[in-house]
Amino acid sequence: MLLAMILTLISTLSPALASASTPKYVFLFIGDGVSVPQVTATQIYLGSLKSKNPHVESLCFTKFPALGMMTTHAADSFITDSASAITAMAAGHKTNDGVINMDPSKKVKYKTIAEFARDKGMKIGIISSVSIDHATPAGFYARNPSRNNYYEIALDLAESNFDFFGGGGFREPKGKDGKQKDVREILKEKGYKVVERAEEIRALKPSDGKVVAINPVLDKEAALPYAINRKRGMDIGLSLAEFTRKAIEMLDGPQGFFIMVEGGKVDWACHANDAASAIQDMLDFNEAVEVALKFYEKHPNETLIIVTGDHECGGMSMGFAGTRYQTYFKILERQKISYDEFSKIVSKYREETPRDKAKLEDLLPKIEELFGLKLLDAERRKALEEKVKTGDIEAALELHLSLNEDELIELKKAFEMSMLPKDKRPKDELTYKLYGRYEPLTVKITHILNQKAGIGWTSYSHTGLPVPVYAIGVGSEVFKGYYDNTDLFYKLCNILNIDISKGNIISVISYAYRLAA
Amino acid sequence: MLLAMILTLISTLSPALASASTPKYVFLFIGDGVSVPQVTATQIYLGSLKSKNPHVESLCFTKFPALGMMTTHAADSFITDSASAITAMAAGHKTNDGVINMDPSKKVKYKTIAEFARDKGMKIGIISSVSIDHATPAGFYARNPSRNNYYEIALDLAESNFDFFGGGGFREPKGKDGKQKDVREILKEKGYKVVERAEEIRALKPSDGKVVAINPVLDKEAALPYAINRKRGMDIGLSLAEFTRKAIEMLDGPQGFFIMVEGGKVDWACHANDAASAIQDMLDFNEAVEVALKFYEKHPNETLIIVTGDHECGGMSMGFAGTRYQTYFKILERQKISYDEFSKIVSKYREETPRDKAKLEDLLPKIEELFGLKLLDAERRKALEEKVKTGDIEAALELHLSLNEDELIELKKAFEMSMLPKDKRPKDELTYKLYGRYEPLTVKITHILNQKAGIGWTSYSHTGLPVPVYAIGVGSEVFKGYYDNTDLFYKLCNILNIDISKGNIISVISYAYRLAA
Repeated sequence: MLLAMILTLISTLSPALASASTPKYVFLFIGDGVSVPQVTATQIYLGSLKSKNPHVESLCFTKFPALGMMTTHAADSFITDSASAITAMAAGHKTNDGVINMDPSKKVKYKTIAEFARDKGMKIGIISSVSIDHATPAGFYARNPSRNNYYEIALDLAESNFDFFGGGGFREPKGKDGKQKDVREILKEKGYKVVERAEEIRALKPSDGKVVAINPVLDKEAALPYAINRKRGMDIGLSLAEFTRKAIEMLDGPQGFFIMVEGGKVDWACHANDAASAIQDMLDFNEAVEVALKFYEKHPNETLIIVTGDHECGGMSMGFAGTRYQTYFKILERQKISYDEFSKIVSKYREETPRDKAKLEDLLPKIEELFGLKLLDAERRKALEEKVKTGDIEAALELHLSLNEDELIELKKAFEMSMLPKDKRPKDELTYKLYGRYEPLTVKITHILNQKAGIGWTSYSHTGLPVPVYAIGVGSEVFKGYYDNTDLFYKLCNILNIDISKGNIISVISYAYRLAA
Repeated sequence: MLLAMILTLISTLSPALASASTPKYVFLFIGDGVSVPQVTATQIYLGSLKSKNPHVESLCFTKFPALGMMTTHAADSFITDSASAITAMAAGHKTNDGVINMDPSKKVKYKTIAEFARDKGMKIGIISSVSIDHATPAGFYARNPSRNNYYEIALDLAESNFDFFGGGGFREPKGKDGKQKDVREILKEKGYKVVERAEEIRALKPSDGKVVAINPVLDKEAALPYAINRKRGMDIGLSLAEFTRKAIEMLDGPQGFFIMVEGGKVDWACHANDAASAIQDMLDFNEAVEVALKFYEKHPNETLIIVTGDHECGGMSMGFAGTRYQTYFKILERQKISYDEFSKIVSKYREETPRDKAKLEDLLPKIEELFGLKLLDAERRKALEEKVKTGDIEAALELHLSLNEDELIELKKAFEMSMLPKDKRPKDELTYKLYGRYEPLTVKITHILNQKAGIGWTSYSHTGLPVPVYAIGVGSEVFKGYYDNTDLFYKLCNILNIDISKGNIISVISYAYRLAA
């Protein structure tokens, strides 16, 4: 085995050590909750729209020449959360779930790759589709025993001296008690321009200096709305691609840049077991990578793009017991609303309807309009069955989208639960397994639609699957192979010629020993 | 995108084209039903036995320097079966599920990589832990419109002139009607020595010439028994590693060799949603790769080892709703029997017990002995709870293995179903989703044990997940990256300097165009 170990070491370290070229422009794209299933589901969905035959459509980054895979376990669990995952990737250390850039005892603090790059003179951009104080973006500028200390994390952001923050807003801009000084005021004192209107963001110029650009439309957790809601004409503000384009415009210059872009809501959609919303946000994420790729094509000898995820979410699977060896991803096209927006409709109905008057039938037209699922009367069913006999695929999909008796019973049970006030709902394990902590009717609808498409879920939490790494450009070679997520940090340090002995982290020698272990 | 495409092309083709070195010894290991989840589950299981802290233990092949990933869709489905998958990998063509080395119209026949290697003068060995006429091994020597034509496939085997067949036996040695000439007789006429006793297999020498070595212990489908059954002292004959070692001994020589080894029963265990059996067979598969790795270490400049899978199976996930962010893989150690062997116990009980006398309680001692799942009385539970307070992990696992009320209700329902004669069981979809086509009590037991471990399943069929590729040795570079399973064939042809224009397949030029598409 010694030989294999030495080979692994050489193949991992030598390209970086041997190469004199260091990228001037670095893009790190992180899909939260994105592993092989989320990427593949998106590819199969696109392929299903494009071709009648099975066709796995490429995303721009699945064509990248370098492919790697990273293990993702945390210090205290085989299943990582976004905090321990980003501490591993951005600072090179395993820690406990929930902790950002500190050790499990919450005493030692770690310096991040973005801070090393800043100290090297590079411009730094941090973009996320969720709130900018959320675990993944925070992992580049903050240290905190808990990812939930949003205000303290925002204060770290104000101290970062990074050049560009874009995307979501602040979760607790005035602290948990709402009585602290508004973080936007603090940012202004620190020399940041804070912009929250679309036209202001679009008008930003490099001469504006350090900026925090917050999307004009935010959900209640200060994140960008789900991309899928564009389908029914909802204004969701700027896209992840627009923020990425703006960051490049603001940071491009002789010093080079390090830009991190998080596609944060794929994770949230997968927690809720909502495949269509996850896929549409994957497409927005892909579009943001395309912006970087255009930049790369202009600067191929100076640019590195890395695309990865922090962990899988939901135990998503392209195969469900009920559909055996078949998949029907095309039906996901019918969904036009994200789970959270539909849950608002359910809540509103619950609040406006007397308990003894509430019935599922009232919501069926909305379910048909927004998810494609419907009841078919005998006549309609027969007409569709006739069309199917002539090879009409659309008719077959219509038929497939119809609700059968079992599904209707399940929907009714979920509807009854959804009509209970939230504090009156059962808290037992069976109920949790059925609906997680989500609106029961919404979860049941996405479960039925996903299962009809051939998608199964096993959890409302993350899972222990490794994550893929796709890379192109200067230094991309070193991201090939199978390694741990902490190695991402060391690999980045290597190719950026960062002297990590000047930080508070273990040396390259101990890294080599670790690899050989 | 053109630049990215060209880079992909160069990185894929150039190492093979530029390199003058061609491996003399090629090992191709295929884990049937093995994708990232099956590999990771095995790593987490080993890590759980070794360390109290989360530790992902390496398998010998996960340390290989080259990592790739392959898409697996068939011509007629996003979800491949083993027949279309092996046609892609061994002959470079997409075909329909169920078809072996023929086109979807079942007219064109394809020549396989093993046949090209044979014609080049290499010795050929084909080993499988399932029957040697099963889809995956058949994919190297047979052409048939249906993988189920076992007798015809066995006749192709007899015509292959390959040097070594080892592992499982023949599914229909005298044809479907049992009236055909025994395939073993035909093999002898063709110059094969057919050995079916352990000591005979172990005594085989190169001077014995062409051999078919069939394991002395076979299940009813002519496959090796599951490795997990060794735990309770069952004789399961030779291991996959022993067959691999024997093949090397028989085929080593100046002509070089191509040896394919299939770990075939991981797939079957995953179909049945039995993680512990899948993992133990993964460990046997890993042990077989270790044998090749020892050979590689003696001949590092002449040997190539590739380890891959043909598709995922079961929608296996290291994360289950009920266990949230926790996993308890260590409890899988308690399982000491494979699902099929336990189902024999259930069948026997059903046959020997009058319907009105049958009760789950009779089988609970067996369930505790063979799966670790048990009912705890209040006293025992309290004692364990006290121990847990002192940090006793084993006591915590005992407690975790106890059956709660919900689980007992589910077991009882499954037991009732299992006590029905097979032809009297309901055939509806809800029943299928609960138990597949397996013994209901057995599936419910493995589901409960797996879910307690933190493992979820979404299907009793395969899924559309890509498969990983691990490679080491001469030419291993070309197996890096993300490509289609048909590319495996072309990559192998490239590094073996096989002139594919002499076969019935598309040329390297059209391959390059295909990559660029």
